[in-house]
Amino acid sequence: MNAEIICVGTEILLGNIVNTNAAFIAERISRLGIECYNQCVVGDNMDRCIAQLKDSSSRSDIIILSGGLGPTEDDITKEAVAKFLRLPLVEDEASRKSIEAYFAKRGKEPTENNWKQALLPKGAKAVPNDNGTAPGIIIETKNCKYILLPGPPIELEAMFDSQIMPYLRGLGAGAIFSRTVKIVGVGESEAETMIKDMIDAQTNPTIATYAKTAEVHIRVTAFGSDEKEARKLVKPVVKELKSRFGNNVYAAEEEVSLEQSVVELLATNKMSLSTVESCTGGMISSMIVNIPGASDVLKCAFVTYSNKAKRKLVGVKKGTLDKYGAVSKQTATEMAKGGAETAKSDVCIAVTGLAGPGGATDTKPVGLVYIGCCIKGEVRVREFHFSGDRTKIRTLSAKNALILARECILEYISKVDFG
Amino acid sequence: MNAEIICVGTEILLGNIVNTNAAFIAERISRLGIECYNQCVVGDNMDRCIAQLKDSSSRSDIIILSGGLGPTEDDITKEAVAKFLRLPLVEDEASRKSIEAYFAKRGKEPTENNWKQALLPKGAKAVPNDNGTAPGIIIETKNCKYILLPGPPIELEAMFDSQIMPYLRGLGAGAIFSRTVKIVGVGESEAETMIKDMIDAQTNPTIATYAKTAEVHIRVTAFGSDEKEARKLVKPVVKELKSRFGNNVYAAEEEVSLEQSVVELLATNKMSLSTVESCTGGMISSMIVNIPGASDVLKCAFVTYSNKAKRKLVGVKKGTLDKYGAVSKQTATEMAKGGAETAKSDVCIAVTGLAGPGGATDTKPVGLVYIGCCIKGEVRVREFHFSGDRTKIRTLSAKNALILARECILEYISKVDFG
Repeated sequence: MNAEIICVGTEILLGNIVNTNAAFIAERISRLGIECYNQCVVGDNMDRCIAQLKDSSSRSDIIILSGGLGPTEDDITKEAVAKFLRLPLVEDEASRKSIEAYFAKRGKEPTENNWKQALLPKGAKAVPNDNGTAPGIIIETKNCKYILLPGPPIELEAMFDSQIMPYLRGLGAGAIFSRTVKIVGVGESEAETMIKDMIDAQTNPTIATYAKTAEVHIRVTAFGSDEKEARKLVKPVVKELKSRFGNNVYAAEEEVSLEQSVVELLATNKMSLSTVESCTGGMISSMIVNIPGASDVLKCAFVTYSNKAKRKLVGVKKGTLDKYGAVSKQTATEMAKGGAETAKSDVCIAVTGLAGPGGATDTKPVGLVYIGCCIKGEVRVREFHFSGDRTKIRTLSAKNALILARECILEYISKVDFG
Repeated sequence: MNAEIICVGTEILLGNIVNTNAAFIAERISRLGIECYNQCVVGDNMDRCIAQLKDSSSRSDIIILSGGLGPTEDDITKEAVAKFLRLPLVEDEASRKSIEAYFAKRGKEPTENNWKQALLPKGAKAVPNDNGTAPGIIIETKNCKYILLPGPPIELEAMFDSQIMPYLRGLGAGAIFSRTVKIVGVGESEAETMIKDMIDAQTNPTIATYAKTAEVHIRVTAFGSDEKEARKLVKPVVKELKSRFGNNVYAAEEEVSLEQSVVELLATNKMSLSTVESCTGGMISSMIVNIPGASDVLKCAFVTYSNKAKRKLVGVKKGTLDKYGAVSKQTATEMAKGGAETAKSDVCIAVTGLAGPGGATDTKPVGLVYIGCCIKGEVRVREFHFSGDRTKIRTLSAKNALILARECILEYISKVDFG
C-alpha cells in the first residue's frame, strides 16, 4: 500500500511558509509502514490541482491532501476533488451543527462563506475538527482513498493523530520501525565504506547514511506485520553498527543530539563543565543550555572575544598572546586551563580561531581553529582547518569542540575505571 | 518563464527532515518574478526520479533539483538527469582539483567514491561549492534548463545566492528588484493596518508583509525593463515605509540582520557592549560574534546560568537572589549593572528567565523572562511572557534583548545629541 501527499497552497509555492505539514504527515504514515514515493505542492488553482490528482491517482492507493479547505474564495481543494471525481457537493448536517457550535462557543456569528465548509462531496465521510471550522474529509473510491485535511498545522496534526492514524491502521498496513545511529569522527564516505557489505546485503531492514554537519547518521528501517516484529529486525543491525563504530557512536536515537549526549555523559559521571569561547562567541554554551538539565553540569561560560578578555577573565598570559598570537595552540591551552581554574569545573572547553572573512595572515588562514579541552588539569588541543563562510566555520568549531570534549571525557572515565 | 522545484531525498519522504530547501528556493525565484506552479519530492530512486523529470520537463522551463549529489551510492540525482537526457558522465577537471584541494586542506585522503562527485553530464557547467565537495550543475537543453544543487542547506543557500541568482537574473526578460524593510516592535497585523492603503493600491511595486520571529519584514518588489527602472519604482515606496514606521525600522536591506544593526549602531557611536545571559546561555553573544567586526564592540560576555555564577562573575547580591529569585526584575537589574561594571562596557544586556520545560512555580510560569539593558549606568528592565518550547522561548528572549538594547541606545543617542 502506498500513499502520496499533496499540499495545496500558493503561500508554499512562494516560499512564504515552510511546508511542515508534509514532514508531519510523511513521518506518521512511514510509522505505519505505508510507502510514500511522492510529495508535491500545488497552488490554489483548480486546473493544476485536478491535473495533479490525475497523476497521483494513477500511481497511489492513498492521496492525502492538506490545505485549501478554508471558507474563502481561494480555498479550492474540496471543489477540485469533487470535480475530479464527478461528485456533487451536498451539505453535511453534522458539519453544519459543529460549525454553529464552534461560533456559538466564541459568541460569534458565522459569515455566509463559513457554511461553505459544511458542504461535502456526495458519499464522503466528514472528520470532525476540534481546533477549527473546516472538517476533514475521507472519500473512498474503487482504486484510491482521498483524505482531505485542513492546512493549519494545529488543526491538521491533532486531527491526524486522533482520527486519521486509527483510520489508516484500520486499512491494515503493517508497521515500520526505524532507529538512527549517530556517529562522529568518521566521514560519510568512510562510514559507508566501513559498512558497504551491510548496505549491499540490505533488504529488510534497509540502511541509509546521511551526512550532517560534523556528523554521520545511519538510519536502519525495518518493515514488519506489527511494530514488535519490525523492532526485532532492527535490533541486531543497530547492535552490529554500534560494534563497528564503537566510541564513534554517540547516540542510537533520532532525538538525542550531540550536545545532549555530552550533557548526559557529564551528568552520569558527576562532572561539571565550563566553556571559554572566542570565535564561537557563546555558541557552545548556548547549545549546552538548550538541553533541559544543563544546569546540573554547566558551571559558567566565558566569551573572551578580545585579547583583553582572554587575559582578564581566564588569565591567559600577555606573553603567550604576544609571542604566539590569540589563535594558537598555546593560547587555546591557557584558555582551557584558565577557564577550568576560574570556574572550578572538572572539564573546560576552549575555542580560538579565525572565522573570517577578515583577519587572515600568511601563517594563519581563515578557518584555522584551535580547540582545547581541559579535564582534571590535563589539556588536549587540536588544530583544525575549516572552510566555508563565517557561520559554517563557527558551527564546525562548536560541533568539533563537543566531539573533542566527549572523546576526552570517555578516555578519562576508562582510565579511572581501570583504577 | 516558469520553474519548478524537485527535492530528491528519501529522508524527506520519511519525514525525517523538514524540506526547508524548497521554501528557500521558492522564495528566491519568486523574487526574480519567475513563476513556480509545482514543487515535488522524490526519493533516492532512479526510476521515480526519471519519471518526475519527464513530467516536469513537459511543463516547466527551468527545473531546479536539490539533494542527491553526495558521494554515496544512494545519491542518484546527477545520474538520473544524465540518463534522462541521454548524456554520458565525464570527469570535470576543475571539480576534481577542487575535491583534491578540499581534502588536502583537511589533510585527508579522498575515498574512491569522492571522485564520483567530479563527474558531470557531458556539456554541463559545474557550479563551485564553497562549503562542500559536491559542485552544483547547470545543464541547458533546447526546451529546459536543469539546475542541480547540493542538499545540505548551508551549501545550497550559499551557492544559490552567490551563483544561481545571477544566472537566473541573466535569463530574465526585464528585471525584478526588491528591498525588504525590516521592522521591530510592531506586530504583523498592526503593520498591515498601518499600510493597508498602500497594500490595496499596490500594482508595481508589490508590497508583501512577512511575520518573522519578533520581527516583521515588508518586501517591496518592482518589475522593470531593467534593474535601474525597477530600483526607481521601489525607492519612493521604501521611503514612505521608513517614514511611517520611523525608529521601528532597523534595516532596509534583506541582508542586514537585527544583530548586525545593533553592532553597527554601537560601532558608529563608539560604544562597547557586554552581555550577561542566563536562560539564553550565550545565544545573544553568539549572534553578535557572528557579525564580522563584532570585535570592535563586544568587550566580553558571561553565561551566568547558575546563581553562583551570577554572584561570582557579575556580583548579583545573595540577598537579591534569596528575596526575589533568579528570575526577577531585581536580579536582571543587578546582572545588567554588574556586567557593565565588570566588563567596563558602555552597554550591557542581561537576560534571566524560565525557558522550561521544568522549573515553573505558582508565581513564575515557564516563559517568564526579564531582560535588562544597562547603558552608562542607567538600567531598563522589561518583563516578557513567551510561549513555545525551550528553543522558541530562548530565541524570543535573545531577539527581544537585541530589540531592547537598540531602543535604549537610540534614546541615549538622541538625548546626547540634544546636549
